Amino acid sequence: MEGSSYSRRTFLQAAGLGAASVWAPGHVSGYSIDDLRPYLAGERLEIGVSKWDLETPALCVDLDRLERNLSRMETTLQRTGIASRPHTKTHKTPAIAHLQMRHGSIGVCVAKLGEAEVMLDHGVKEVLLTTVNVTPSKVRRAMQLRRWHPNFIQTVDYPDNARDLSTAAEEAGVVADVVVDVSPGARTGIPPGPPALALAQLVDSLPGLRLRGIHAYSGGSQHVVGFSARRAHSLNAMAGAAETRELFQKSGLSTEIFSGGGTGTYNIDHEIPGFTDVQVGSYIFMDCQYLEIGSATNPTLYDDFDSSLTVLATVLNTNFEGRATADAGTKALTLNQPDPYILGSSGITYRARSDEFGAITYGPDASRTFRTGERIELVVSHCDPVVNLYGFMYGIRGERVELIWPIAARGKVV
Amino acid sequence: MEGSSYSRRTFLQAAGLGAASVWAPGHVSGYSIDDLRPYLAGERLEIGVSKWDLETPALCVDLDRLERNLSRMETTLQRTGIASRPHTKTHKTPAIAHLQMRHGSIGVCVAKLGEAEVMLDHGVKEVLLTTVNVTPSKVRRAMQLRRWHPNFIQTVDYPDNARDLSTAAEEAGVVADVVVDVSPGARTGIPPGPPALALAQLVDSLPGLRLRGIHAYSGGSQHVVGFSARRAHSLNAMAGAAETRELFQKSGLSTEIFSGGGTGTYNIDHEIPGFTDVQVGSYIFMDCQYLEIGSATNPTLYDDFDSSLTVLATVLNTNFEGRATADAGTKALTLNQPDPYILGSSGITYRARSDEFGAITYGPDASRTFRTGERIELVVSHCDPVVNLYGFMYGIRGERVELIWPIAARGKVV
Repeated sequence: MEGSSYSRRTFLQAAGLGAASVWAPGHVSGYSIDDLRPYLAGERLEIGVSKWDLETPALCVDLDRLERNLSRMETTLQRTGIASRPHTKTHKTPAIAHLQMRHGSIGVCVAKLGEAEVMLDHGVKEVLLTTVNVTPSKVRRAMQLRRWHPNFIQTVDYPDNARDLSTAAEEAGVVADVVVDVSPGARTGIPPGPPALALAQLVDSLPGLRLRGIHAYSGGSQHVVGFSARRAHSLNAMAGAAETRELFQKSGLSTEIFSGGGTGTYNIDHEIPGFTDVQVGSYIFMDCQYLEIGSATNPTLYDDFDSSLTVLATVLNTNFEGRATADAGTKALTLNQPDPYILGSSGITYRARSDEFGAITYGPDASRTFRTGERIELVVSHCDPVVNLYGFMYGIRGERVELIWPIAARGKVV
Repeated sequence: MEGSSYSRRTFLQAAGLGAASVWAPGHVSGYSIDDLRPYLAGERLEIGVSKWDLETPALCVDLDRLERNLSRMETTLQRTGIASRPHTKTHKTPAIAHLQMRHGSIGVCVAKLGEAEVMLDHGVKEVLLTTVNVTPSKVRRAMQLRRWHPNFIQTVDYPDNARDLSTAAEEAGVVADVVVDVSPGARTGIPPGPPALALAQLVDSLPGLRLRGIHAYSGGSQHVVGFSARRAHSLNAMAGAAETRELFQKSGLSTEIFSGGGTGTYNIDHEIPGFTDVQVGSYIFMDCQYLEIGSATNPTLYDDFDSSLTVLATVLNTNFEGRATADAGTKALTLNQPDPYILGSSGITYRARSDEFGAITYGPDASRTFRTGERIELVVSHCDPVVNLYGFMYGIRGERVELIWPIAARGKVV
């Protein structure tokens, strides 16, 4: 918490925030969303303008909807008795991580070590890295990070890696917290049951490590269409992890953490015995992929949360019959499917299959046409990789820009 | 060219270059690749290390291959008598734009106004913006940019836009250079023939604009498989633009510029009457999409240029039979198809269909297997959007890091 507000502001200016760039905070730390607000709320000309006047493509988040999503998640989890440990790979934005912590989250997850560095540097104090680090340089970097941030937790999924981590932790002069990554599928983690138990016992015996429990993420469950099918998929996929947790308990090993799940299973995973917290990500923004999986009460629309994230685009060309071209292509929307939705219209498709341009096609039942220069608002197909393309997002209240959030961990894939 | 090397270096440090961030140069300008070299070549520890020791995912360019590609393009075009105006949307990297200019290019193209600002700020003096600006704010921004950079050229594709540009140019106190964007397909531009001629005549009559000629990009021709089919496609698609050029000439309008084409048609488009320069992009890097279109002499491999661009990834997990998991997913490689190639192996697929991870699958004829922690090198599917994901690229000579190039226009979609 060192540094006056003056010095923070000077840093932000030096880092080119006003020029809409990303900054890597390096050794600067300790500023929070509250510290950022005064800067963000008055020193850029976009603040206060209508979103319809923004230059595009522009990544926007509706703040009322975002806040509603945060509250809904908090309320539901209070009822089901588990916690949330939101995954910041979705938003890459320290300001949103801080909001999540204020809405009852017990920590955040990160997918990459570089994301961990950004979140910790920005004052997010509880960070679980859900990906293993396997190379000597990353193992060392992770354990040096742990030296400075006592609530940094690292996953491990094979014995040699546990030994390497322990050695690096000892070199850094710390006893580092780890969770065993138990695989509910076949992409990452260690198989459940005896292999996972043996790894946990090894971790427990190593001088540089402290076992905290289990990480088990069933990514394949999250987008299963239909609530009952999704519930069955998740409970089945997580059965091995739940049995592994029992083995840990019988062996006197820590099961303090049993973390996994996501936005698709946030109201399912509390049924897993001993499960402690869900790694929800997309609930804050929503996207076309999640909207289409259906909810517990609505088979055709996942309406537990509101769509808060959009990309504003501008129609560039209407010179050709039956179609138009806009300025958001794959560099603004990614190639994910389904195609983005154009808000406030029907019978019109938007295809972002070219790098620079989006193709608007009017169907026979198109509700309207667009004119050149008109702004359109798109719900994105898959929020995580879209957010990763932008240096900042506009926070919109009603139709006005209220703030601008730097996406500080954007592009941090290393 | 103001500013001592000391002040430039101070700026670079303040902007966080050492922390691998992107910077937006704002009002700083005038430094070139030569100015950057001393900084890049000695002040980061990665310089001189083996690429196999880099943390991953890492974007790498083989400098020998890059230089060979630059020379080959230069030599071929000298023979065919047209020029190159390379498209920097591919590399987003001022250092590479400067290299292209040294290899005989007459200027560069950019897809977005933000890219134009970056290239011009970095001392690239001839910039053609191939996308129209249609909103009042962008029209004004473009014409103010023109005020400071006399060799900035803007496309136009409908009459009202020409009038708006002229008004903004007059406000900026300049007569701005424009080219008419003639459509070879049906996504952007104005239809060839009389509509394009009428627009050119309007441009010629407006006090704030100076007509320089024609822009006509046939994107659909570039990836047609087979040289003769590609040649037929391009010459057919461009016929309307060629006729439009004749109309311009007969009407006494400028045809000084007749620019279009790309890496797929660089050795075809000189056949178009009056064509002046190709907007080649991918030739410097190559990618799986281009490798598969075949060349004039090799029907199965487009071998005119060498693959210079790769993403290094690390194998994270080998706990499961028949597969492995690596650390480069769609945030490192995009969702483009075909799947990336793993260099030095056969019978093995790499699928980057998840945000954070890549799935390695061994076929029955797999030439090898990988161990955890091993680096693999991937040829990317489509170079442009992959480069756009990274803050910098490593320049590799042999197996050593020679330099690090900031991708200064990365993410500049606005």
